[in-house]
Amino acid sequence: MGLSPQKTVIGFIGTGVMGSSMAGHILNAGFALHVYNRTKSRADNLVSKGAVWEDTIAGLSANCDVIITIVGMPGDVEAVYFSEDGILNHVRPGTIVIDMTTSSPELAKNIYQSAKERAIESLDAPVSGGDLGARNATLSIMVGGDEKIFDKLLPLFEIMGKNIVYQGEPGTGQHTKIANQIAIAASMVAVCESLAYAKKAGLDQKTVLKSIGPGAAGSWSLNNLGPRMIADDFDPGFFIKHFMKDMKIAANSSKDLGLATPGLDLARSLYQKLIDQGCENEGTQALYKLFK
Amino acid sequence: MGLSPQKTVIGFIGTGVMGSSMAGHILNAGFALHVYNRTKSRADNLVSKGAVWEDTIAGLSANCDVIITIVGMPGDVEAVYFSEDGILNHVRPGTIVIDMTTSSPELAKNIYQSAKERAIESLDAPVSGGDLGARNATLSIMVGGDEKIFDKLLPLFEIMGKNIVYQGEPGTGQHTKIANQIAIAASMVAVCESLAYAKKAGLDQKTVLKSIGPGAAGSWSLNNLGPRMIADDFDPGFFIKHFMKDMKIAANSSKDLGLATPGLDLARSLYQKLIDQGCENEGTQALYKLFK
Repeated sequence: MGLSPQKTVIGFIGTGVMGSSMAGHILNAGFALHVYNRTKSRADNLVSKGAVWEDTIAGLSANCDVIITIVGMPGDVEAVYFSEDGILNHVRPGTIVIDMTTSSPELAKNIYQSAKERAIESLDAPVSGGDLGARNATLSIMVGGDEKIFDKLLPLFEIMGKNIVYQGEPGTGQHTKIANQIAIAASMVAVCESLAYAKKAGLDQKTVLKSIGPGAAGSWSLNNLGPRMIADDFDPGFFIKHFMKDMKIAANSSKDLGLATPGLDLARSLYQKLIDQGCENEGTQALYKLFK
Repeated sequence: MGLSPQKTVIGFIGTGVMGSSMAGHILNAGFALHVYNRTKSRADNLVSKGAVWEDTIAGLSANCDVIITIVGMPGDVEAVYFSEDGILNHVRPGTIVIDMTTSSPELAKNIYQSAKERAIESLDAPVSGGDLGARNATLSIMVGGDEKIFDKLLPLFEIMGKNIVYQGEPGTGQHTKIANQIAIAASMVAVCESLAYAKKAGLDQKTVLKSIGPGAAGSWSLNNLGPRMIADDFDPGFFIKHFMKDMKIAANSSKDLGLATPGLDLARSLYQKLIDQGCENEGTQALYKLFK
């Protein structure tokens, strides 16, 4: 059976900043959409556009062909899938569940295994690209699980994202997202130090960006977050508290794999200082405050 | 007086990997070119194409309208400019000297000041882009000094580079290059950790790059050096020993400015380990060896 707006009912659990945009695209594509969120009011907008509100996860799970989850912490993912009222105890055989939360690879494997035992298919498919990527349907989606299920779901992913890559067995989507966050972590320190140096040296930071942004020092962080640092704009594109969650998952997983990550450790310790200063709801570019 | 191949004699001191390519472009543009290098044989190719060999820096200095230097360490720059046989003691008033070595901002200011006292003009104009950028005339050139001299020399810079930016007063070219190297330093750690994580997690590293390279984790280092790390290709594009020199200049200057640079410090300590292992003549991407 292929996906089709006429026949496939999509369930969506977690209509926060990311989820509400992603679910909106699915609704706009013509699919029947059932939604659940811990805070009901955050689903109001989707319901006003035609989504069906479900009072419980159990109820949603029994009514859908494909269920997407994007919630907060790994603990939330665990509860949504494994609790008595959770997805796996109420879903119909043949359903496909997709966790798009950034969560732990181990948990993704556990969900996959438990799902298999109930004849349910499971993919881990975390995303990168932030609220802007969710809004513009330009997310990068990194997918682990069975390839034939990925192939089947690809049209659904294409409604939400642009760079959609199958990474391999269950858990590899989450592992890839961790690699993504590790690549960002110490780079943020580098960007902050560089722009703080420019300022202390008396340079015009915008002119410095013209020299260094397009070349070997260039990065998404430098070219997109650098201008916000210079402008003292610390509004969240990506929340510090969420980045810290991801870095903790990354640190735990690195430890499990026996990998030393001094750059990640440094970034975590600096972001912890920011959190101690009450900046957890600012954007990750607020790291610059520690240097300027 | 404007620059013109018919009337302007260019002197070039330092015909190493970078300098020989840069000098070659000037020669190809039709300028009379006089060259000097500590190791004469490295200028043979330029001489065979029409450059005039000078036996001494003093001799070259007396014969040229514009003198470009790109040598090794700040100590070499100091000797080339300030020693008894150096540029400043033999150059004609009205000459323009341009140091394109990556060197210290303080030294750049000293050269500027001493040059002014002799009615000589001076620019600091370090480059980024490596041997490939030098060969293809796509270098980024960051320039400090008097703006009217920059304007006059711009056509000459355009023979060697693409992204040519005037940064401000004497020393700002060097300060900008430092900001560039600081932005690279901790980012290299991030890239190595990310790709090492991918490997230890059992992912296909090339497929991971497809997911993370184009997005928020993307950087020149990840997308250009990452594939070399994956392929165990540690041949020098940019030598570790040269990067270490630059990072030392950056650390000293940061200290002078009262800026803490934990990311730069981490990168330096890791690259020092590589040098201790005898890897100083490998490319900067060899940092990956410490993690894989």
